[in-house]
Amino acid sequence: MSLLVTGSIAIDTVKTPLGVSENCIGGSAVYFSMAASFFSPVRLVGAVGGDCPFDLKQVFAGRSVDLTGLEIRKNSNTFRWAGTYHADINERTTDKLELNVLAEEPPKVPQVYKDSKFIFLANTAPALQLQLLEQIDEPSFIAADTMDCWIQGRLDDLERLLKKIDCLIINEDEARLLAAEHNLIKAAEAILEMGPIILVVKKGELGSIVCKADEKFVLPAFPSAEVKDPTGAGDSFAGALMGHLAQTGKTDFATLKAAVAYGTVVASFTIADFSLAGLALIGKADIDSRLGILRKMTQF
Amino acid sequence: MSLLVTGSIAIDTVKTPLGVSENCIGGSAVYFSMAASFFSPVRLVGAVGGDCPFDLKQVFAGRSVDLTGLEIRKNSNTFRWAGTYHADINERTTDKLELNVLAEEPPKVPQVYKDSKFIFLANTAPALQLQLLEQIDEPSFIAADTMDCWIQGRLDDLERLLKKIDCLIINEDEARLLAAEHNLIKAAEAILEMGPIILVVKKGELGSIVCKADEKFVLPAFPSAEVKDPTGAGDSFAGALMGHLAQTGKTDFATLKAAVAYGTVVASFTIADFSLAGLALIGKADIDSRLGILRKMTQF
Repeated sequence: MSLLVTGSIAIDTVKTPLGVSENCIGGSAVYFSMAASFFSPVRLVGAVGGDCPFDLKQVFAGRSVDLTGLEIRKNSNTFRWAGTYHADINERTTDKLELNVLAEEPPKVPQVYKDSKFIFLANTAPALQLQLLEQIDEPSFIAADTMDCWIQGRLDDLERLLKKIDCLIINEDEARLLAAEHNLIKAAEAILEMGPIILVVKKGELGSIVCKADEKFVLPAFPSAEVKDPTGAGDSFAGALMGHLAQTGKTDFATLKAAVAYGTVVASFTIADFSLAGLALIGKADIDSRLGILRKMTQF
Repeated sequence: MSLLVTGSIAIDTVKTPLGVSENCIGGSAVYFSMAASFFSPVRLVGAVGGDCPFDLKQVFAGRSVDLTGLEIRKNSNTFRWAGTYHADINERTTDKLELNVLAEEPPKVPQVYKDSKFIFLANTAPALQLQLLEQIDEPSFIAADTMDCWIQGRLDDLERLLKKIDCLIINEDEARLLAAEHNLIKAAEAILEMGPIILVVKKGELGSIVCKADEKFVLPAFPSAEVKDPTGAGDSFAGALMGHLAQTGKTDFATLKAAVAYGTVVASFTIADFSLAGLALIGKADIDSRLGILRKMTQF
């Protein structure tokens, strides 16, 4: 079934203990689309400025990523993020954040996208997520991400959003913050009360917990010997997850478990190199092979 | 097969966000024996002082815990520990530590224990662990725990110990410290080079990774809604793990996976209440039932 993502396209500068990558392509919609495209065609909604050095057609060459929803705003600048990951690779500092085009009106959902069924609203102001959602005719499964600044600063909007989505995909710390509860299981229960039917909590290095009212699934991170650059791990995770759901057209718990396992595996490829390099050279067969390893490593 | 544990018997005072438990029974050998006794008879080697308010025969009443190796030293004092767990239940502060009997000569291994096959050396100075080990005739599987102070202060002794044991069971932070490597998978590889055939790394709230040279197993923590007191989680984990191995008499990787899953489940009962209360009222059927839930929650 059709899969739409709306999110950022970024010019990233990333420092990690293993190197530096300057002005490379990043952004939630980019990582999401790259990861999802292994499973399902993707429709991208996003905007860049006239300064954008990347040709997204080239970036997604040979992949089924529809760029009808890409707006190139000649007189604006592209979103830029610079960050440093520390010796503990799960800790990062933002060195620079230039919202640029992200601070403007959000991009429009093109007419030909309006029949999309699986929707992923990457992290942005919840009011904008709601505005984007309203442009879709009859979505069948809506997932969203959010982050600490919206939980703290735009809780009203976020609560409205939570009532309209099926699945919230957030980090461990964000789940604790949103529920005002440290214990993750209690936090999950509280968040499910706020609206979504499914909560996916991403934990350190992408282990995860999936909670529904009556079912739970816990999956450890894929043990990776080399983490070069964690940027995009969460969005790749969401991309593969939603890609698998859209591909199967199902959202039952067994399918969701497999989708989360795919998310975990694809994220493990993302973090093995800078920017999109970890995903650029692999194929679906590599993903399936690593899924088999993950299954063997977690079964008892 | 016979299972022997040598470790501490403690008078603990524990503060957690959910309450206080003063002068309750604790110690690595106690938690270990309690957990292991669901699976296999246990032989305990440990010492208390004349001040010990606990009758260990009473504590282990109805369980197959052999106390021939318990020394009651009338003129000594029992090991005491007081600690506080914080809002993040994985963080704790030691408020008081009185080694007392633990600073004396270690207890002797009784003649009738010398044919023990499965051995667990709970955390203490590695020189003492070696000294205890030398008293066993022909052990077939030796596991040990250690901690940061020995890695930092007694590395020579610890390296000698590592060459003699089959399995090291330590925390995530300790593994990183021992290997001087932040990435857990690389750290594991480095530690396996130091001697043990198997490394079990206990992660936050008792998720774990098991590493052999050519095999890995990763298991998330059992998602617990209520963590009342994490004291003893690691020793209960080790107790159930070793108990299952001793019960089956096997140490192949499939058995080890099941043993780690049992460890995870028993630890989840331990942390649900103070001191031994979480383990006191359950039976093997409760453990097996929760193991089934864990299997269902981790399978995809």
